[in-house]
Amino acid sequence: MPYELFYWDGIQGRGEFVRLALEDAGAEYRDVAREPDGMETMMACLKGQDGMGVPPFAPPFLKDGDQIISHVANILHYLAPRLGLVPDVEALRAEAHGMQLTITDFVAEVHDTHHPISTADYYEDQKDEAKARTAAFLKHRVPKFVGYFDRLLAVSAERGVKRGDGADQAFALGDRFTYVDLSLFQIAEGLAYAFPRALANFDDAYPHVAAVRETVRQRPGIAAYLASDRRLAFNQNGIFRHYPELDQIAY
Amino acid sequence: MPYELFYWDGIQGRGEFVRLALEDAGAEYRDVAREPDGMETMMACLKGQDGMGVPPFAPPFLKDGDQIISHVANILHYLAPRLGLVPDVEALRAEAHGMQLTITDFVAEVHDTHHPISTADYYEDQKDEAKARTAAFLKHRVPKFVGYFDRLLAVSAERGVKRGDGADQAFALGDRFTYVDLSLFQIAEGLAYAFPRALANFDDAYPHVAAVRETVRQRPGIAAYLASDRRLAFNQNGIFRHYPELDQIAY
Repeated sequence: MPYELFYWDGIQGRGEFVRLALEDAGAEYRDVAREPDGMETMMACLKGQDGMGVPPFAPPFLKDGDQIISHVANILHYLAPRLGLVPDVEALRAEAHGMQLTITDFVAEVHDTHHPISTADYYEDQKDEAKARTAAFLKHRVPKFVGYFDRLLAVSAERGVKRGDGADQAFALGDRFTYVDLSLFQIAEGLAYAFPRALANFDDAYPHVAAVRETVRQRPGIAAYLASDRRLAFNQNGIFRHYPELDQIAY
Repeated sequence: MPYELFYWDGIQGRGEFVRLALEDAGAEYRDVAREPDGMETMMACLKGQDGMGVPPFAPPFLKDGDQIISHVANILHYLAPRLGLVPDVEALRAEAHGMQLTITDFVAEVHDTHHPISTADYYEDQKDEAKARTAAFLKHRVPKFVGYFDRLLAVSAERGVKRGDGADQAFALGDRFTYVDLSLFQIAEGLAYAFPRALANFDDAYPHVAAVRETVRQRPGIAAYLASDRRLAFNQNGIFRHYPELDQIAY
């Protein structure tokens, strides 16, 4: 039975982190809300009208038979051993999950760059505050978060050299590719879309993250996905948005 | 060997969700940063100087022997089966973890009520924005999040009545007490500290959450903890802060 992913139609958003794992692994899945009448199906789930019990707080959520799993990091934690995207060892799963939860926090901060006051109001009604929040985000938070992952990948690379096993690519969890690397790809892609001017030096500043992004782009499952119409384009309704007035170099 | 919790000294903060689980279960643990020279030990860990490899992104993190687990929800996911605070069944652990991740998101929003623009700046330098964000938080986000958990507990209670097994208390995961209930206690306590005026009607609005709070308060491990000097008071450096100018009734 295929996995059933439930996420808002029309945006990459948080659901994209799950799609990337499913696509990389070549897993069978349905992207339910994007099917005909799919939004109605998803809204019925969220209202608890489908008999599945207490509904999740919000999309994305995944159905695997009778099991419902909510929140991106929880879904990836559940799926990854099944998809071969993390070793099925508790210690390594917990390590990867901790990294993914750091990415989760970062994604929330990306969202708040354009909605620093209220998600109930339009961006246009909080534009001044968005400029201030985005300036702080670009100056402090991008270096803190992306810099962290770049250092982490650098440590992996050093260890690979020491091992001398010829591994020429470092991943978040060491020499083993995991779903965390897929998520780092999505972060790098999203930042490049949202802040092409402010982060023009991204590849120089974060060379190890940039290398992972390129490796991910060339993986067969991802390359096929990116070339398909299943990959939605970034747009102004998602988490990563491009507003030229926010995309300013931080001093 | 006792668990070693690493979290900033002087505040409840995010570490408190982990402390509550350890205390409720009567687990042996060290609160490392609160010991003499403990902050130096924690900072050395965060700089990767303790030989444990790639450091966590931020406190809290837990050491269990050689294993490091970072992020509150990840720590609770790891600890809870060991402490008897969740059934050791993947489906139920995933359900509880999804709930805890919703609480995680809410806690981040609580933090941003007083720091809507930048964590690098003082509250006083973003007070106007904090007023606007807090008004939206109290009007939209508290009802959305806390209301969600109240409905979830109401469903649990209905099921308990249908089962007719005499269970007079509903918990987040049904008739079984878990760490999620401990976290709901902390949410309710924190909101009462931060917004006594704006949320004066909390118990009427969210009676099931209020009931869980009272149940938790009377659990032997928690009652002993709350009466001890291990329980720090809420203060103006933590996640939940009381600023009278933010504690305004939302219309």
